[in-house]
Amino acid sequence: MTDTRMTDPIDDSDGDRLREYCGVFGIFDHPDATILTALGLHALQHRGQEAAGIVAFDGKRFNSERRLGLVGDHFSKESTIKRLPGNSAIGHVRYATTGETILRNVQPLFAELNTGGFAIGHNGNLTNAHTLRRELIEEGAIFQSTSDTEVILHLVARSRKTRLIERFIEALRSIEGAYSLVVLSNKKLIGARDPLGIRPLVIGELDGKYILASETCALDIIGARFVRDVANGEVVIISEDGLESLRPFPAQPMRPCIFEYIYFARPDSIVHGRPVYDVRKAMGVELARERRIDADVVVPVPDSGVPAALGYARESGIPFELGIIRNHYIGRTFIQPTQSVREIGVRLKHSANRCVVAGKRVILIDDSIVRGTTSVKIVQMMRDAGASEVHFLISSPPITHPDYYGIDTPQRDKLLAATHSLEEMRQYIGSDSLAFLSIDGIYRAMGEERRDSQRPQFTDHCFTGEYPTTLTDVTEERVKAQLSLLAEAS
Amino acid sequence: MTDTRMTDPIDDSDGDRLREYCGVFGIFDHPDATILTALGLHALQHRGQEAAGIVAFDGKRFNSERRLGLVGDHFSKESTIKRLPGNSAIGHVRYATTGETILRNVQPLFAELNTGGFAIGHNGNLTNAHTLRRELIEEGAIFQSTSDTEVILHLVARSRKTRLIERFIEALRSIEGAYSLVVLSNKKLIGARDPLGIRPLVIGELDGKYILASETCALDIIGARFVRDVANGEVVIISEDGLESLRPFPAQPMRPCIFEYIYFARPDSIVHGRPVYDVRKAMGVELARERRIDADVVVPVPDSGVPAALGYARESGIPFELGIIRNHYIGRTFIQPTQSVREIGVRLKHSANRCVVAGKRVILIDDSIVRGTTSVKIVQMMRDAGASEVHFLISSPPITHPDYYGIDTPQRDKLLAATHSLEEMRQYIGSDSLAFLSIDGIYRAMGEERRDSQRPQFTDHCFTGEYPTTLTDVTEERVKAQLSLLAEAS
Amino acid sequence: MTDTRMTDPIDDSDGDRLREYCGVFGIFDHPDATILTALGLHALQHRGQEAAGIVAFDGKRFNSERRLGLVGDHFSKESTIKRLPGNSAIGHVRYATTGETILRNVQPLFAELNTGGFAIGHNGNLTNAHTLRRELIEEGAIFQSTSDTEVILHLVARSRKTRLIERFIEALRSIEGAYSLVVLSNKKLIGARDPLGIRPLVIGELDGKYILASETCALDIIGARFVRDVANGEVVIISEDGLESLRPFPAQPMRPCIFEYIYFARPDSIVHGRPVYDVRKAMGVELARERRIDADVVVPVPDSGVPAALGYARESGIPFELGIIRNHYIGRTFIQPTQSVREIGVRLKHSANRCVVAGKRVILIDDSIVRGTTSVKIVQMMRDAGASEVHFLISSPPITHPDYYGIDTPQRDKLLAATHSLEEMRQYIGSDSLAFLSIDGIYRAMGEERRDSQRPQFTDHCFTGEYPTTLTDVTEERVKAQLSLLAEAS
Amino acid sequence: MTDTRMTDPIDDSDGDRLREYCGVFGIFDHPDATILTALGLHALQHRGQEAAGIVAFDGKRFNSERRLGLVGDHFSKESTIKRLPGNSAIGHVRYATTGETILRNVQPLFAELNTGGFAIGHNGNLTNAHTLRRELIEEGAIFQSTSDTEVILHLVARSRKTRLIERFIEALRSIEGAYSLVVLSNKKLIGARDPLGIRPLVIGELDGKYILASETCALDIIGARFVRDVANGEVVIISEDGLESLRPFPAQPMRPCIFEYIYFARPDSIVHGRPVYDVRKAMGVELARERRIDADVVVPVPDSGVPAALGYARESGIPFELGIIRNHYIGRTFIQPTQSVREIGVRLKHSANRCVVAGKRVILIDDSIVRGTTSVKIVQMMRDAGASEVHFLISSPPITHPDYYGIDTPQRDKLLAATHSLEEMRQYIGSDSLAFLSIDGIYRAMGEERRDSQRPQFTDHCFTGEYPTTLTDVTEERVKAQLSLLAEAS
Repeated sequence: MTDTRMTDPIDDSDGDRLREYCGVFGIFDHPDATILTALGLHALQHRGQEAAGIVAFDGKRFNSERRLGLVGDHFSKESTIKRLPGNSAIGHVRYATTGETILRNVQPLFAELNTGGFAIGHNGNLTNAHTLRRELIEEGAIFQSTSDTEVILHLVARSRKTRLIERFIEALRSIEGAYSLVVLSNKKLIGARDPLGIRPLVIGELDGKYILASETCALDIIGARFVRDVANGEVVIISEDGLESLRPFPAQPMRPCIFEYIYFARPDSIVHGRPVYDVRKAMGVELARERRIDADVVVPVPDSGVPAALGYARESGIPFELGIIRNHYIGRTFIQPTQSVREIGVRLKHSANRCVVAGKRVILIDDSIVRGTTSVKIVQMMRDAGASEVHFLISSPPITHPDYYGIDTPQRDKLLAATHSLEEMRQYIGSDSLAFLSIDGIYRAMGEERRDSQRPQFTDHCFTGEYPTTLTDVTEERVKAQLSLLAEAS
Repeated sequence: MTDTRMTDPIDDSDGDRLREYCGVFGIFDHPDATILTALGLHALQHRGQEAAGIVAFDGKRFNSERRLGLVGDHFSKESTIKRLPGNSAIGHVRYATTGETILRNVQPLFAELNTGGFAIGHNGNLTNAHTLRRELIEEGAIFQSTSDTEVILHLVARSRKTRLIERFIEALRSIEGAYSLVVLSNKKLIGARDPLGIRPLVIGELDGKYILASETCALDIIGARFVRDVANGEVVIISEDGLESLRPFPAQPMRPCIFEYIYFARPDSIVHGRPVYDVRKAMGVELARERRIDADVVVPVPDSGVPAALGYARESGIPFELGIIRNHYIGRTFIQPTQSVREIGVRLKHSANRCVVAGKRVILIDDSIVRGTTSVKIVQMMRDAGASEVHFLISSPPITHPDYYGIDTPQRDKLLAATHSLEEMRQYIGSDSLAFLSIDGIYRAMGEERRDSQRPQFTDHCFTGEYPTTLTDVTEERVKAQLSLLAEAS
Repeated sequence: MTDTRMTDPIDDSDGDRLREYCGVFGIFDHPDATILTALGLHALQHRGQEAAGIVAFDGKRFNSERRLGLVGDHFSKESTIKRLPGNSAIGHVRYATTGETILRNVQPLFAELNTGGFAIGHNGNLTNAHTLRRELIEEGAIFQSTSDTEVILHLVARSRKTRLIERFIEALRSIEGAYSLVVLSNKKLIGARDPLGIRPLVIGELDGKYILASETCALDIIGARFVRDVANGEVVIISEDGLESLRPFPAQPMRPCIFEYIYFARPDSIVHGRPVYDVRKAMGVELARERRIDADVVVPVPDSGVPAALGYARESGIPFELGIIRNHYIGRTFIQPTQSVREIGVRLKHSANRCVVAGKRVILIDDSIVRGTTSVKIVQMMRDAGASEVHFLISSPPITHPDYYGIDTPQRDKLLAATHSLEEMRQYIGSDSLAFLSIDGIYRAMGEERRDSQRPQFTDHCFTGEYPTTLTDVTEERVKAQLSLLAEAS
Repeated sequence: MTDTRMTDPIDDSDGDRLREYCGVFGIFDHPDATILTALGLHALQHRGQEAAGIVAFDGKRFNSERRLGLVGDHFSKESTIKRLPGNSAIGHVRYATTGETILRNVQPLFAELNTGGFAIGHNGNLTNAHTLRRELIEEGAIFQSTSDTEVILHLVARSRKTRLIERFIEALRSIEGAYSLVVLSNKKLIGARDPLGIRPLVIGELDGKYILASETCALDIIGARFVRDVANGEVVIISEDGLESLRPFPAQPMRPCIFEYIYFARPDSIVHGRPVYDVRKAMGVELARERRIDADVVVPVPDSGVPAALGYARESGIPFELGIIRNHYIGRTFIQPTQSVREIGVRLKHSANRCVVAGKRVILIDDSIVRGTTSVKIVQMMRDAGASEVHFLISSPPITHPDYYGIDTPQRDKLLAATHSLEEMRQYIGSDSLAFLSIDGIYRAMGEERRDSQRPQFTDHCFTGEYPTTLTDVTEERVKAQLSLLAEAS
């Protein structure tokens, strides 16, 4: 916990360090600000399970608690809540993609600026953070974390503008990538979303007080009303004077991340007007239309494959059965930090429901394949339980490109679909057949006619390789790598 | 952790103290005995989440680790496994029904007898433990725990028989109630089941070595083969000479606890030849036959209501939908120790899936109603999410009597069905209608024609009040209470 | 903490296991019983630093807290004290001589007998505990600790006498060795001392309430009045009726352990009327009379050598100086559990005060030599700091025999004086000269004319080999060892 | 541990926050750098007991461990040392004067500058830190701790000089007050001392490698050789090229803090050529010359009063006796953080040695009186133990002024001597007489003829009110306070 590991700047330029996936929450001027934030974060726990933090402002002081572990491990306790008095608060749940999670990186980050205290929580990932960080260190800034978010803090601190909001917007203009931000100052709660709206952020209301949250499920848990999504490129300022909206960027169409619908968001959340559960069932329906298979049972890979499997079963008329039982005492695979834990996790987490599977032709439905290591084991588990055939269907297209906007995807060469043909994948996974939903199929499930190749309606680079923003750090890394190859050659 | 709380014998005669619900595992002469036991206990975690323990024997010493918390919290670590060398091991998961869980009560219990070390793990509850305990203390026995299981230890220690197995059987003849036991001595692994076979116990085999476990799911996780159930009243002795079976009690029909099928066992377990998942679906089918309702969606109360809801949906033709989303970061309600946690749990654990429920006539399916407090909240949650009608159907009969065989049921006056008529229950719960599966319906789901009222095929006193054994401690309490009333009166 | 390590009975017959050195405290019918017990134990901390425990009785329940670590680590906290309500309490500090300290061995031990709760704390060591333990296990007793004290608990539990005090005295008649006991029942506080009074026990009084404690310093810390020593072979019973004294053993002269004066007791304690500080100074005076050396400074080995060094300096006229500075952040050497810690301890604990030592002829004064390993390092430290001569004087005779009454002495072959001549010891230690106080010298320091060889006034077997009681366990071990040699030979 | 408490800048301007008292250590290019640093810090533990930290550099990375608690609690473990690989290391022990100790304030502090990693440990206190901090925040610096030391870090980071050493010296020119600094970069170990040399810093050598440490006792523990003191105003740079000395400030006479001799330094340390033990004995001698009393025993208040008491006893011919026994299981009073702990501490820490004191005229010798609360209790303890007279002599002058250079003195109105006449102090303390060593007496004990009132040889403002530097923060506070009074008045 108290272990702080510091690295030389040279080592710090490793691109993996700064990536993370997260959820945010904020509430202004409510007597139960802290406990409501804790509950909101609990509802957002699926967005980050390694650490959680809350900063509350009591009119005089900012108090902060940041902890490794689940929200419920720490923020359920009266003693912790008591150490966070205040009427306004922001909170953050976090999942570190690589290396050790260290407390210094846990958000919200806080700084004492000359305008007063300033706390910030960030969901997303900046694609020019390394570059900015190096420039700031050059100018004498002292970084305490390895988080990309700290760059924003320093940009605000160094701005020569007078008003906090002007300084904040000036900072936003320097950064690129994906961000949904919640900020707490001694007078305001601020929310901001990047120009494309890659990560979600919604506005809610409880007892006449404003709330910001990554997903609507964080409003539901506390009985708050959904007001609207924060728009792409919008900055909302919540203060005693109510809610003010600024649009500091040129207008452009929204392009939210399609992966929120496929995997990340909770099924009961409504993202940009689309219920996630309905979208996932529609993916199953589209899959059944694209790929009809003669089989006895439709079995979801729990829990994320369940809605698509229900959709597939209904469209195909093949019975839906719980052929895989999940052990509830372990967290989900995709979101664990090390390879070794992943493998133990698979073994401990699922078991075949023999009575459903034995002697049957089984259609397995999952939402996606990343490395494919889990899929291999699940197919084998079905065969061990006596399945006569195993057909593996995926309710989204093949993932061929890594993400740089806050999703923990492995390096490209670890993505199964980036390095294998469909038939090679089938052989690797060991199923009798393998199919993915098409890219147009997924757009249809989203309610679109098809993908607009000129102006894609969603951020979908994981399937298409079309990144919606410049990737300054990536480019710079590549140039540096090439230069060092040249240097070695000469 | 190190806090030991001791009570005067007077206070100890409180009946609640000795009840618990548990799972057991044992393996003999396998090089990975300890880690396999840990994995087996992990698969049995649903049977007890407050504490876990393993005793391993390495040919010279018995080593023991007993911990509060989940199996995975402690027994997943290499350091813990290393402290438990040995080729034979038994393990236990435990759930304390009342008061504080204390480490002294965590099993397996161990004693050094004059025949050598003796470790025991117990699933079930003895109905004459208080009476025996008082007698043993009278004779100079020193009890270190408040567990009913320790009585068995003292009976074995005091037996005048020469061979351990004779002493153990002598002890079994003194106790009454429900027990599935695993015992480890320096030469043998012993399993025993009470004359009625109230709690389950199965024999498995891996690499030619014998295993004992509460449920088949503990065999599946380690890839072991199911051999057979231990019979009611059977004692199995596993040693270097293989497996020997003794039948120290007069033969009688088995009468297993019906609640294993309704709630406790994992859906992928097979109990006495019946797949639990199939039985639960059949309960839903029977429920649909008994109680057809005109509605739009069938929604399970997750997760235990899912199979019955699938059965109901299939039989009725009404679509099955996940109308309630479970937050995976909290354990299940029924199995939490205090009332207050239960209430927070309900609030944090489930959320309505609005897109499925709003404007719909909803059939909610749950496996049982105990106090009813959760049901009230779930019905309200459906209404808050816009359900136009809420029909609450229970896939088992009303629970009207407490259990004394190892299930944590509240005192009778806290059981909703013991104190309310069906209509009063409906009003309390707030649903538009309420129905339970009939007692014959549940027997049909079990594959029986009907309940044999002369010789009921199952232990079902929670529904019928017909307890299958004498209840010595309960009777004695009642007599004592009456005497003290007389004393007050005089 | 929660780690319980159990051993097969065979291994348990290792003689080292049962030895310990301890301090006890008890108070009856005082509103601050628990906090006064905690303070008393803190004053007795030098008698045992590995673990501490308190049992308090609140008129209905016995509550207990037993912890590894110092008294102040746990029992200084309000939360701990609050968990120990009651007007009567006993406490214990403990030092385990070998192997791991386990919580199960921490005292007071407690049992629920048919006469009610019974808690016991023991200072001393029984010399027939193994033998009794084996017999008790044979009869069906279940031992939970490896402590010799638990034997007493079982003897009391099994007694057929009616009254607790009769059962307790019956138990005392079965045991041999050294014991100062405090016992708490639901009606009484009992103190008892073995027939020779080997370990100390005093009676105090505060606010008209009785106290029992190992040393008077535990009375001083709470402002209590010293009443008298418990006599050898006396049992004192403190109840609502006041203090009653029983003498269940035939009268014989007291023979207290001389090591209490040399090393164990705190210098401000008064043991059997003799102030410990005065006795230690007198040992220095006698040493100066026996062994006059021409030197520049008298330097004590801190802290136990200080009073003797003051006595030596005053008698000899050579200046007393602090030539060795002790680092206050480490405990004292003799009382650490493992050899490896001992060695680090020496290195971290003392440093030479160069300005006092450089160029000087130094007389080092220490209270005793056990293994001699520390002495070697201290002499070397003086030489490294520039001492021109180093004379090592010991204010007690050579230790040639191990203790079996509760002092942690190593096996005989590890005692330097048991295996080396005086000159060999000097060479080993590396000093210019080495001398010990004579056996008659130490008796003179105690105020005696000389040692009465017919009836020695003190328990002094460590110097003389004359053990004051039979040593049943030791003899039995020897016989067993001889038999096994015979067996091997045949 | 993980609790981070942040305050609004407004609250942070409270002067108390930035004060601390500490010890430092550094070693360059030695294979055992980390463990030697840990041992050195252990020897310096008396200079700060609340927290400790080490930063080590392994040629590529800086690794850091910072912990609340004693050095031995954490840095004695192999696991901790292993997390700190490297050939160069600096360490710090810390004592926080006010409020909660937080991990963010534990040193060494670290920053990644554009010149590479930079770690710093500081003993002393800056008198313009608040002022500088406010200016730096104004310019956009982000502070992570409330420590005055972090100001230095930011000054170095923002310097426009090219070389690290130039940037560091530029930073030194901005700060005022007392500082002995150790700095570790990826190429150098740097030591620096303020222009007056208020806090000590010495250079040592082991195996041909250089060491920096607050006191010589940290060299002794590891067997290192004392080379020389770092001079006042000197910067020493240790690198692969050896040791280089810079003098960036105009030459002026040294003026070390006299309190190092009176209380802080360990008695076996040699500070600026004077053995601390000898100086303290000389204070006792001077006290005996100034104040001869007709009494029976000289009793030191342990442990800091012992050398002065030996000096007094020798000069006066009155016997030295240990009339107060210290319980070794509690730390010393002066260095505990809160008033309440102080009071429990006194009660638990000392006891009267009745046999020495009863019926005697006692001279108590202590090194100083701060608040006087402990003195009251000790005098009372002597009377309770039967002393017929108690004379209280202090081996230094009355403390009338607070310190601002790193000693934790209370606000002036809490200093007994600042608000009471000698006779009032005697009455408060309750002794028969009370005397302090004169200011010239203490200078004589230091080897000076008298205090040079033009150019005092020592920093002695606590006795004289003559502060050796400007006190920017204090002045500013006073001005602010006056302005706010004016504001209130108007």
